Amino acid sequence: MKARVHITLKNGVLDPQGKAVENALHGLGFGGVSDVRQGKFIEMKLKAGDAAAAKKEVEEMCRSLLANTVIENYAVEVID
Amino acid sequence: MKARVHITLKNGVLDPQGKAVENALHGLGFGGVSDVRQGKFIEMKLKAGDAAAAKKEVEEMCRSLLANTVIENYAVEVID
Repeated sequence: MKARVHITLKNGVLDPQGKAVENALHGLGFGGVSDVRQGKFIEMKLKAGDAAAAKKEVEEMCRSLLANTVIENYAVEVID
Repeated sequence: MKARVHITLKNGVLDPQGKAVENALHGLGFGGVSDVRQGKFIEMKLKAGDAAAAKKEVEEMCRSLLANTVIENYAVEVID
């Protein structure tokens, strides 16, 4: 079973990395770009009985290690 | 118009960051996890006429700045 996790900064949290990317894109001539936000994307394989159990386990991983829930949101997707 | 970009390491490219996450998850008792790969996830707003033009522009950004195409793949999704 595979899982995909998106970890993004919460709205209102400053994203200096995204801002740096935005400025670099402007410098390269992509003037129409705004609100660039950079997050993390994690893929993993899991030994889990069913999709519901897998999702629960990955959410637990997010809370305990992968995401800083004070400033970050996480979204878990389980595939096949 | 909004775009979402996933930047992932190509197959066969070592991912020490993913490996570190995997080891940490094992240490926390999540023994069933394997093949952890960490990538980047970028969201942005665009001023573009239509979805096809937006996608083309973002792919150009990936090639020129966002992704290192020697070791990374990129996938672009344009929303509304």
